Amino acid sequence: MQILEERIVQDGLVIGTDTVKVDSFLNQQLDVNLFQALGKEIHRRFQDERINKILTIETSGIAIATVVALEYGGLPLVYAKKNKPSTMIDDSYSAPVKSFTKGIVSNVRVSKRYLQPSDRILIIDDFLAHGEAMYGLISLCKQAGAEVIGLCSVIEKVFQGGGDKLRAQGYHLESLAKIEKVENGKIVFTE
Amino acid sequence: MQILEERIVQDGLVIGTDTVKVDSFLNQQLDVNLFQALGKEIHRRFQDERINKILTIETSGIAIATVVALEYGGLPLVYAKKNKPSTMIDDSYSAPVKSFTKGIVSNVRVSKRYLQPSDRILIIDDFLAHGEAMYGLISLCKQAGAEVIGLCSVIEKVFQGGGDKLRAQGYHLESLAKIEKVENGKIVFTE
Repeated sequence: MQILEERIVQDGLVIGTDTVKVDSFLNQQLDVNLFQALGKEIHRRFQDERINKILTIETSGIAIATVVALEYGGLPLVYAKKNKPSTMIDDSYSAPVKSFTKGIVSNVRVSKRYLQPSDRILIIDDFLAHGEAMYGLISLCKQAGAEVIGLCSVIEKVFQGGGDKLRAQGYHLESLAKIEKVENGKIVFTE
Repeated sequence: MQILEERIVQDGLVIGTDTVKVDSFLNQQLDVNLFQALGKEIHRRFQDERINKILTIETSGIAIATVVALEYGGLPLVYAKKNKPSTMIDDSYSAPVKSFTKGIVSNVRVSKRYLQPSDRILIIDDFLAHGEAMYGLISLCKQAGAEVIGLCSVIEKVFQGGGDKLRAQGYHLESLAKIEKVENGKIVFTE
């Protein structure tokens, strides 16, 4: 998606060979007008699929998932939590997820009330690197007997392999910008 | 706001005398159509104010703040983080915030790049109880020299006193639903 790639080049900050920091428009500070354009594009890419619920993971998936849920005319949006607060008293599904940026494993959870066997889920996240978060969310859906209809990331770091692994397993995965590699401080997108 | 109060009564779960769980529509599972109505109402309540940036705190403030930022035609939305991930390398402002539901003190942070002395800020959060999160966010703004134009919570738990304290200090605080007390498992709203 061209406007996204241009924005990543313009405002993204390359750190080393594997991190692209986009917190001036995608995390921390959000350009919601850009988000709206991304939401429309995600809706377009899954227009042939029947979807009844959006699933994401806290924190940075929530804003883009909100915009997508609105774009679908108001689908329920569920986000998995990384910690269990004292008010989360329901039975929940859980799965381990390793954070690439934080280097820690957390348990992600979602209340059993919010994933049903009848659900047809579109999973959304901001970044796709090794695929850990996606696999965690897929696991939550499987535990609930819900069907994973599609996966979508805003930015896929192709060189970290998670996306290719998911596609090889037959998932319909879309990424709005695919970073092939980071070379000499420059971002190279997949053609 | 009547539709919100009705929804809290219909779907909220009262726990003890001070917790109202609304995670079927406001946290964890989000009714984004309701959020859109809330966003319009927040925009209406601050229509006489000049605002150039929305500030919230992760996690549960992000979705409502996203909708409000869109309602304003696309204002920049900044969210304070509760933990410092390895990619957050900038200098940041920080303030301690005690979480009512989790019972822990965390440091909230925002990169110095995203709060400026010229900013006129509307602070948004989902719940207002003792006011800890609001005071933390106000502190971040003060450190940056930014002006806090208004504060808005979706649900204020009036009996926990944070809202009255903030109003007494002269802040323009709006809350879309004000819970006066929880009595015998029933929610009583402020008239």
